[in-house]
Amino acid sequence: MIQKPRGTRDFLPDEMERRRHYEGVLRHVAETFGFREIATPIFEEAELFILRSGSNILNELYAFRDKGDREIALRPEMTAPAIRMFVNSMSNEPKPIKMFYFGQCFRYERPQSGRYREFYQFGAELIGNKNPESDAEIIALAASMIKALGLRDYRIRIGHIGVLRQKLADAGVPKEKTAEILQKLDKKLYDEAEPILIDLGVSDLARQEIFDLTGTVGGMEVLSNVPGEAGDYLRSVAEILGRMGVRDVDIDLGVVRGLDYYTGMVFEAEAPALGAEKQICGGGSYTLSELFGGEQVFSTGFAIGFDRILLAMEKEGIEYGLRGIDAYVVPASDAVRGEAYGIVSMLRDSGISSDMDLMGRKMAKAMKHASSVGAGKVIIVGEKELSERSVTVRDMSSGDQTLIRISELVRYLS
Amino acid sequence: MIQKPRGTRDFLPDEMERRRHYEGVLRHVAETFGFREIATPIFEEAELFILRSGSNILNELYAFRDKGDREIALRPEMTAPAIRMFVNSMSNEPKPIKMFYFGQCFRYERPQSGRYREFYQFGAELIGNKNPESDAEIIALAASMIKALGLRDYRIRIGHIGVLRQKLADAGVPKEKTAEILQKLDKKLYDEAEPILIDLGVSDLARQEIFDLTGTVGGMEVLSNVPGEAGDYLRSVAEILGRMGVRDVDIDLGVVRGLDYYTGMVFEAEAPALGAEKQICGGGSYTLSELFGGEQVFSTGFAIGFDRILLAMEKEGIEYGLRGIDAYVVPASDAVRGEAYGIVSMLRDSGISSDMDLMGRKMAKAMKHASSVGAGKVIIVGEKELSERSVTVRDMSSGDQTLIRISELVRYLS
Repeated sequence: MIQKPRGTRDFLPDEMERRRHYEGVLRHVAETFGFREIATPIFEEAELFILRSGSNILNELYAFRDKGDREIALRPEMTAPAIRMFVNSMSNEPKPIKMFYFGQCFRYERPQSGRYREFYQFGAELIGNKNPESDAEIIALAASMIKALGLRDYRIRIGHIGVLRQKLADAGVPKEKTAEILQKLDKKLYDEAEPILIDLGVSDLARQEIFDLTGTVGGMEVLSNVPGEAGDYLRSVAEILGRMGVRDVDIDLGVVRGLDYYTGMVFEAEAPALGAEKQICGGGSYTLSELFGGEQVFSTGFAIGFDRILLAMEKEGIEYGLRGIDAYVVPASDAVRGEAYGIVSMLRDSGISSDMDLMGRKMAKAMKHASSVGAGKVIIVGEKELSERSVTVRDMSSGDQTLIRISELVRYLS
Repeated sequence: MIQKPRGTRDFLPDEMERRRHYEGVLRHVAETFGFREIATPIFEEAELFILRSGSNILNELYAFRDKGDREIALRPEMTAPAIRMFVNSMSNEPKPIKMFYFGQCFRYERPQSGRYREFYQFGAELIGNKNPESDAEIIALAASMIKALGLRDYRIRIGHIGVLRQKLADAGVPKEKTAEILQKLDKKLYDEAEPILIDLGVSDLARQEIFDLTGTVGGMEVLSNVPGEAGDYLRSVAEILGRMGVRDVDIDLGVVRGLDYYTGMVFEAEAPALGAEKQICGGGSYTLSELFGGEQVFSTGFAIGFDRILLAMEKEGIEYGLRGIDAYVVPASDAVRGEAYGIVSMLRDSGISSDMDLMGRKMAKAMKHASSVGAGKVIIVGEKELSERSVTVRDMSSGDQTLIRISELVRYLS
């Protein structure tokens, strides 16, 4: 028996309905913020992802040569494609450009709980300015999305990569070593960061200050201890978020997100329900367009791990109620099947979801099938009732039956 | 500058909004028919598609070996994955199973008008029975979908592969030659079919009857000339379609759809606006599950070429009106920016799509930007009005301005 490829999933109807529902919630929130959806191809030139993330990414990519001998790769994320598209086709549009996207991404890694080789991301990018207003807007959008999904327990932590970068530069760390150290600090691997810093001649005091800085965690008030431009910047972001009514955010200067291309504010959201692999969202401000052959343009954005956040909601016991169908039409005998088709078509034309037996079931079995497809009402078409242009409507939750004129049926069910 | 891969597309916001709108129309129709959405992976084991379509398909597949040395392929269509999923996970569910899907498919072929290497299909499968009721249901769904999109000029043509197969068998054509001849007949390549038939010893009269049969085209009335089981079957399908109010269908026994695995009814829809490449939908009844290791189960289904049908609508001049955003909030001075953030958040929380300048524009330029993002209303936040807890609402189409209390604003804009 042929199976789906390892690390991928099939979505059966119940699960798919739930996923489309929450996808719709996220899309609606993005649209109320004035973001507009875009879509890019499932695969890109592999070079695009190497430019963004370095050649190490090749180990995780589904990369292959196409018949034209081009090295292409299934997208591992959608920020690079979105900025590639901006550089190709949107660079002259009025700024800011506010875009969002939803779709599959691919990483060749060991499948584990909540991590798949084919996974879904919902992301947003705001292209055009490097200012606290833009960063606050993007954080507010992420916060509103998570809230709208109904997830109860989550933390959004905001940091600024500039504070640490400045501190490292002041301590004499050369630029080419910064990324390596930030990666260690991001994972709180102080034991591994320390010998590298010592080798670079960073003093005991400076090392301690660097480690302390990554421990600056708490409500907005901890910002009062943060000096310099980055401190001022984050205070402005915090003030705007306050004005926007976004309260569920903390400061954490230990958020550095490891990636080279972030330039200022960075943030993450976690759902404790997920245990060790608890990150559900990550983002920050960056520039990428110049890497892809465009002009330098400042951007800020984030991606939500759609599978992860749905798993967190499931672990919190948030239930989704399946819609079922509105009506199931049952002819009481074969003589009235033709009329039953007419009725089911009339309901469908009016936008009332409805179904009818196609397996030649007799009435009792058809009633059972109506229940298994979650029908709210069963419309029983009988010869006698039909002669009076009426049908019997049975409410499947109460069991009540009512005689309704066919001409009134759509109004009755709407 | 890095470009998108050849034969793929980026969808910018205006185009994406239009696509999502029509995708929603199709989804809504499928749901009113009691079909439920499923999703399968973007790639499958290449074997799946070879089993369905023969090894020739490899020439068109994006196939590659993954790091685990498995031969995988980007899906060229979604019927095989849907039936693979049915065999793996749904074979014990009550029948019929009514599923639909929407997503990207991939074919390595020369890109041309309306044909892309990454293209979108909307499809439906009804799994469980081989009867006129099931086939009529699937044709009615396809017809309702095309109608709901608003396409004006299209033809749905229904045939039956059994009629021709029977005729060929009666004329002495061996089973292993049937597929080749059906492919020629499907493309009306009589000149190529004739020598093969002559080689097989098919008589002049029998050849003429075969060719005449593929020319049986017209309204439902032409069915009266079609003998045998297939004729009875199609008459039943036609009668049910009549009861369901589906009128925009013709009979065309020349529709044979070339593919081996169809077992009975076959149908196609064409949009003349597209010229030579005018097919927008194709389907029919088939069995595939036994090829993938399951039991034999009869199915019927179809796929709509989403890109093609949108192109046909465009060629017919069907316009889609972009939604724009509901409101754009403009602070009259920097002193009231904070209050403006509060107002924009209040509107978004109420589901009113709204935006605000993030580029430091002064009032006149912000008004211009509001117009470029298609705002219906502009909310001007002025110091004086604010002291009376009010704002000025400007209607962007009429230019009328009204003073509205902030506490009334959501109701006023809803």
